[in-house]
Amino acid sequence: MPELRKDPVLGRWIIIARERGKRPSDFVIAESPTTGGFCPLCHGNENTTPHEVLVYGRDHGAPDSPGWKVRVVPNKYPALVIEGDLNREGEGLYDKMNGIGAHEVIVESPLHDDTFSSLAAEHLVMVFKAFQARIRDLEHDDRFRYVLIFKNFGKAAGASLEHSHSQLVALPILPRKIESELTGALTYYNYKERCVYCDIISQELKQDVRVVCRNDSFITITPFAPRTPFEMWILPISHSSAYHDQSEEQLKDLAEIFSESLSRLDACIPNVPYNFVLHTQPLRSQHMSHFHWHFEIVPKLTSIAGFEWGSGFYINPMPPEEAASYLRESLERLS
Amino acid sequence: MPELRKDPVLGRWIIIARERGKRPSDFVIAESPTTGGFCPLCHGNENTTPHEVLVYGRDHGAPDSPGWKVRVVPNKYPALVIEGDLNREGEGLYDKMNGIGAHEVIVESPLHDDTFSSLAAEHLVMVFKAFQARIRDLEHDDRFRYVLIFKNFGKAAGASLEHSHSQLVALPILPRKIESELTGALTYYNYKERCVYCDIISQELKQDVRVVCRNDSFITITPFAPRTPFEMWILPISHSSAYHDQSEEQLKDLAEIFSESLSRLDACIPNVPYNFVLHTQPLRSQHMSHFHWHFEIVPKLTSIAGFEWGSGFYINPMPPEEAASYLRESLERLS
Repeated sequence: MPELRKDPVLGRWIIIARERGKRPSDFVIAESPTTGGFCPLCHGNENTTPHEVLVYGRDHGAPDSPGWKVRVVPNKYPALVIEGDLNREGEGLYDKMNGIGAHEVIVESPLHDDTFSSLAAEHLVMVFKAFQARIRDLEHDDRFRYVLIFKNFGKAAGASLEHSHSQLVALPILPRKIESELTGALTYYNYKERCVYCDIISQELKQDVRVVCRNDSFITITPFAPRTPFEMWILPISHSSAYHDQSEEQLKDLAEIFSESLSRLDACIPNVPYNFVLHTQPLRSQHMSHFHWHFEIVPKLTSIAGFEWGSGFYINPMPPEEAASYLRESLERLS
Repeated sequence: MPELRKDPVLGRWIIIARERGKRPSDFVIAESPTTGGFCPLCHGNENTTPHEVLVYGRDHGAPDSPGWKVRVVPNKYPALVIEGDLNREGEGLYDKMNGIGAHEVIVESPLHDDTFSSLAAEHLVMVFKAFQARIRDLEHDDRFRYVLIFKNFGKAAGASLEHSHSQLVALPILPRKIESELTGALTYYNYKERCVYCDIISQELKQDVRVVCRNDSFITITPFAPRTPFEMWILPISHSSAYHDQSEEQLKDLAEIFSESLSRLDACIPNVPYNFVLHTQPLRSQHMSHFHWHFEIVPKLTSIAGFEWGSGFYINPMPPEEAASYLRESLERLS
């Protein structure tokens, strides 16, 4: 059973997910995702994964059979496990709890060579709907306080499988970063009676130096204080705190801008490894006037070294205004 | 001129240190440190670095000449620059300031093939004295609030030069991580009237499952909630908030335990890349009853991926009790 442990000074939680029998000599930096060979996420290999919890695009046929377009399955090597009661305990001055949670894989396509940015818009809409459906479903489980959806693309960004997929982790505690965002946004709201993200969008539209692209519902910007070169945020233009409340029409616009943003990134730096994360309101929250859901896309182009570990500062060699200008021109340069 | 920028939601600062003329295609993950070829940190090449600001072991001879044992020079490619006045300004809702600071390199040995853990104890004491001397000197500069000392060892941990060195960055603002530690430690102190780190040490000595080694003045533990496999903290056993106040006698004990801790790590995982950071009190602070200076050693064995970026959580496959047990046995196994 994995374990959640809290740093007694910082309040930072970590997950001890012991890999059985791993000895010191087995610890090496994650090597390249499997290239070639057997892929458990490919169509035809459905019986090699745990049983699917959601599937789109298969109208007939048995569960765990081919014919699907998007498929969600529990992670075979979960960081947290779904069975059991939450059990909080102390150990002297330390705090821990058993590692209850959900860890799922959203397989974005049956085809091995598809990538997130190459999927057709209507296919991507299905992926975004799957994110919504899983959040709505896990919201019924009172043990969980947050569902974090994220993607690791490319070996340097931590992907262990090549086949296009994202992941979801349901957590019994509110992650520190979400808590900081909620607190920061609430402080701003209490002072100004305005959502800080809405103010960011309005300033970005006015300044127009960090806007990468926009459509009717969404805007992609390079944030003012980015952690890495070419970091991008995708935000709904109209205020909304809950990703799972977006309409199908809005998800179409989301698919369009996500695809365009990643294509622009790819045109600047072909095949760049990246992570994306979805930040939305905590489970079972009421609508929040101060929080604004968004995606953060973080390309893996710089390394986290002693300075970052020690300070929490990031050093970024690329001003976001320049990154935005490269991203704006990138597709036009190619055509 | 570099620029410091603040995220308007999180209050997180980043440094924009533009590398002139860098185009998107120039961004690749830092490749291996220079192996072989010319090394600017080797003895005999002193004229290829900026002028030294501190030197130990050279009794005669001109500045920037050979014959030294430890040498501190400004970083040739600084993240922050030393000349100029602090200039804070807003840009709409955003905050920024110009990138004033110091960025120095502590060259730990004149010989290219020495490593931190292979240096003789009396040599290592000189390195630790150099850290103290630089903190004391930079404390006189009112523009700076903190001096962060850290080391990147090995390419995966961000080292760009192979020659043994650590680095120092003096910052005009208190780094977020230090601030969080100070706040967490103060909260604990206000509640218990005891230093949380002193309590940690006392519990660790009693439980004796996460102690790696100890001597008269210091203890090395694997922390209860480690971010990575084999993370270690080195703490003075007697309460002290200021690293630069340690006596020469204590620095000898520090050299001994640091060397032993790294040798144990190296015996477990030969040549493992790692970072270490020194967390000490802010510049010009009075003695703090609630804070306890320490080193954190973070081996680079797992990758930071979407889950970590998005949540602030870390997933660690190695329980610290097991890591401590491997580290305790490692040297004995070798001999």
